[in-house]
Amino acid sequence: MILCVCLNPAVDVTYRLDAGLHPGHTHRVTSQEQRAGGKTLNVARLLTDRGIACTLLAPLGADTGRSIRADLAATAIRTSFVEITGPTRRTVVVVDPTDATVLNEPGPPLSGTEWAAVLERYQALLPTADLVVMSGSLPPGVPADAYRVLTALAAEHDLPALVDAGGPTLRAALAAHPYLVKPNLAELAGISSGPLHSTADIVAAGHELLALGARNAVISCGSDGLVAVTETGSWHARAGLVTGNPTGAGDALVAALAAATVSDLPWPDRLRAGAGMSAAAVADPVAGHVDPNLQSALTAGVTLTPLPAPSAASPPTLPP
Amino acid sequence: MILCVCLNPAVDVTYRLDAGLHPGHTHRVTSQEQRAGGKTLNVARLLTDRGIACTLLAPLGADTGRSIRADLAATAIRTSFVEITGPTRRTVVVVDPTDATVLNEPGPPLSGTEWAAVLERYQALLPTADLVVMSGSLPPGVPADAYRVLTALAAEHDLPALVDAGGPTLRAALAAHPYLVKPNLAELAGISSGPLHSTADIVAAGHELLALGARNAVISCGSDGLVAVTETGSWHARAGLVTGNPTGAGDALVAALAAATVSDLPWPDRLRAGAGMSAAAVADPVAGHVDPNLQSALTAGVTLTPLPAPSAASPPTLPP
Repeated sequence: MILCVCLNPAVDVTYRLDAGLHPGHTHRVTSQEQRAGGKTLNVARLLTDRGIACTLLAPLGADTGRSIRADLAATAIRTSFVEITGPTRRTVVVVDPTDATVLNEPGPPLSGTEWAAVLERYQALLPTADLVVMSGSLPPGVPADAYRVLTALAAEHDLPALVDAGGPTLRAALAAHPYLVKPNLAELAGISSGPLHSTADIVAAGHELLALGARNAVISCGSDGLVAVTETGSWHARAGLVTGNPTGAGDALVAALAAATVSDLPWPDRLRAGAGMSAAAVADPVAGHVDPNLQSALTAGVTLTPLPAPSAASPPTLPP
Repeated sequence: MILCVCLNPAVDVTYRLDAGLHPGHTHRVTSQEQRAGGKTLNVARLLTDRGIACTLLAPLGADTGRSIRADLAATAIRTSFVEITGPTRRTVVVVDPTDATVLNEPGPPLSGTEWAAVLERYQALLPTADLVVMSGSLPPGVPADAYRVLTALAAEHDLPALVDAGGPTLRAALAAHPYLVKPNLAELAGISSGPLHSTADIVAAGHELLALGARNAVISCGSDGLVAVTETGSWHARAGLVTGNPTGAGDALVAALAAATVSDLPWPDRLRAGAGMSAAAVADPVAGHVDPNLQSALTAGVTLTPLPAPSAASPPTLPP
């Protein structure tokens, strides 16, 4: 079982407008949809859709929390919810004829007792897990090193942890030696000390992540595919170009990597699966949904290129 | 008791941003508030705050409906809710450092059975009412002549009806001879056959409303105050200039007119009360809330000017 920890789930609301969004004006929303969302929740959806056993652990609160409960009760996703007082957040995407504008509510604050209840539930689930996935933002009240704590607790059960985050959340997690981290380029830039202009730069930054504690790193590079720096080698993987909505592509990559890790596939196959599923997610307008046929076709066509280890830094040049 | 019928209540959500709203970009909401809203609901809040007996009748559905129930349970507002299946709508106001941008969800569709249940509840409340207030938009599924039906049912109990609406909703209501209609200038423009450039134009348009069936008409003209065309004369009323948020000023005007009508004040006093409360509402950042001291001060300073009846139309000029 893959244990998917979603600390800041969201009700994803989509508002469609017939005309453009104009700041300062009043708009009639012509249609709206809402759906349970949040990064690890989307991972759990994708795994469940593929028949891979997983359990979603999430704190939920108030009306928006109830709406997520109701939404997921209609799916096959196995869930373990911790009731909290604060209202689960919403994300609002306003889609007009030319743009998609996103408004992300902050998460509900978790009290110390509520965070302890999440940790207790997590520890109760660990003995039946094969791998732990944690991704996305932390709600207020959760310690900044939450992913370090979760990774360290998983290690006590010899469980690999997959962390998809950036900034201080990722940096803190590295101290507990997660099995795999999956930042995107923007998140990597927040941690790396050097530039990220070339594939060689990205490989060098990936090695920095390993030096900071990660055992393996996969960096998602948008339409350029992904760069992996692992214990057994480095690769660039890229699927055929797909146009669409990149939201959710990172979650699809995480789902594919988690499933392939549990299946103990060799790294090249994990990366092919990841690049293919991530590209297929771009073609799907809904985050957390991927067409299996397109996924197979794109995975079969992934180009995998081994990458050399980074060269030693050039000796500093003396000032003239 | 003033019966306040709110057919399309809303959860009013306010998102505050630290920086400007930029279409096509992602924004972090720095703080958010939500509050039960909707035009007649705000009228009921204001009446209750002043100790004036009223009952709010509204259909409510799903999570958003429950949130309104919970919000109003913490107030003294007497309520009579009809449970419906569709989710009560939200309105989202995005406040950035320079602008307020509004996104209005459509209302939940009411089934024929749900609309019949609202009508049944309304008829059960009429015998204890002194006046009926109906204002705001109609949700899908409610007949376009809903305010005509409600006004006619009130008339069977000899009850005056106060209708705050525009367009086809107001036009339909006029057929049932409501005691008072209160369009704003934009709503009046949708019904009037002539221009609305001057006070004389507005008085003429007000007489048109009377000719179409209204017994009295008060037109809210923003910072220019209000123009009243009544059975006993016409007036222009204007309070001292106040800057702030005009949202909710119309609801405050309706609340003041409703209270003054039930108290059987003469028209000049009703209009002073309306203009003063409406101006005080502008000073308050929250719709449905008015500072009583400011209201008293502004009401005392209202300038009331009697207006002449409109002159007969000039004979058509012959083409040269």
